[in-house]
This record gives sequence, C-alpha cells and structure tokens, in this order.
Amino acid sequence: MYVVLVYDISQEKNGARRCSRIFKICKKYLSHIQDSVFEGELSNAQLERFKQELKGYINKELDSVILFKSRQEKWLDKEFWGKEDDCTSFFL
Amino acid sequence: MYVVLVYDISQEKNGARRCSRIFKICKKYLSHIQDSVFEGELSNAQLERFKQELKGYINKELDSVILFKSRQEKWLDKEFWGKEDDCTSFFL
Repeated sequence: MYVVLVYDISQEKNGARRCSRIFKICKKYLSHIQDSVFEGELSNAQLERFKQELKGYINKELDSVILFKSRQEKWLDKEFWGKEDDCTSFFL
Repeated sequence: MYVVLVYDISQEKNGARRCSRIFKICKKYLSHIQDSVFEGELSNAQLERFKQELKGYINKELDSVILFKSRQEKWLDKEFWGKEDDCTSFFL
C-alpha cells in the first residue's frame, strides 16, 4: 500500500532524542519529502514492523504521528505549491 | 475531493509572518490536524480559490507546501500512532 506519514514530536521529555530516532526509522522505511513528512510503498508486513519499531519511541501523551494509507498510489494525486525537495520521490 | 495539505515554511525572509498568514488561510478551508498538517473536503472551485489565496504568501524558493488529493475520502485510511488532537476531524 502507499502511505504518507506526518509527525510532530514534542521537545519535552528528551524530545530531541526521540525525534532523531523516529526520523531514522521513518527514513529506513519511507522517502523523506518534507521536514516531518514521509511517503512510500509498504507491504502489510513492512507496515507492521515499521509500527513496532516506532512504537518504542513515540510518547503517546506528547507526540502526534498520523499515517494516511491508500491501497493504491494512483488513488492519490500530489501537487507541490512551493519548492520541490530534491529528495522527493515522484509519482510514475 | 478529500485533501491533505502539509507545509514547511522557512523562517528566512520574514518567515514568521508568512507562516501566520498561510496558517490562517489553511484554517479557513481545512481542518487543522497536526502542527503543519490540514485535511478536508474541497470542491474544485474551492481548491482553486484556496490555491490562489495561498500563492501570494508562499515563497517558492524557500517554502514547501505539498497537497495530497484523493477523489474519495474512503480511498484513504488514517491511523494515529501517537496522541490524537481534539481538533481532528475523524472519518465516518
């Protein structure tokens, strides 16, 4: 499935360390397309592993992590209204 | 159509003012679900007006604004892996 993940990690309670760990795990599974936004194609098994890895670092009282899932990438269109990052993975 | 908008506004060149204007325009058209993430249902006409309003404030060299569009909200599923903001609009 095609997923877009957005996070907002609080600076409280050692937030910088959490943020750095969460960033690294997201980069392992997805492409980084904006400050705290990632996208990519994952199987159900990959998504489950990704979730388990992140779970250990997300503070459920402080941090917001939202995942948008679409069964097919073609169901989602993407527009850039500002600059386009070099690291962005484009739709085919 | 159902849209998700994510932005990353640079602090350079009067960025705080741009960010505040962009935030207000996004709030006018969409629901605020995370720090710099908005979602909502827009018609083509509304999307066009929204884009035109934002255009005046986005610095195309510095700011990143990405819009994900799905023809139907049901094609996109949403999961919260951290806290859920009170202001979030949930799927039916």
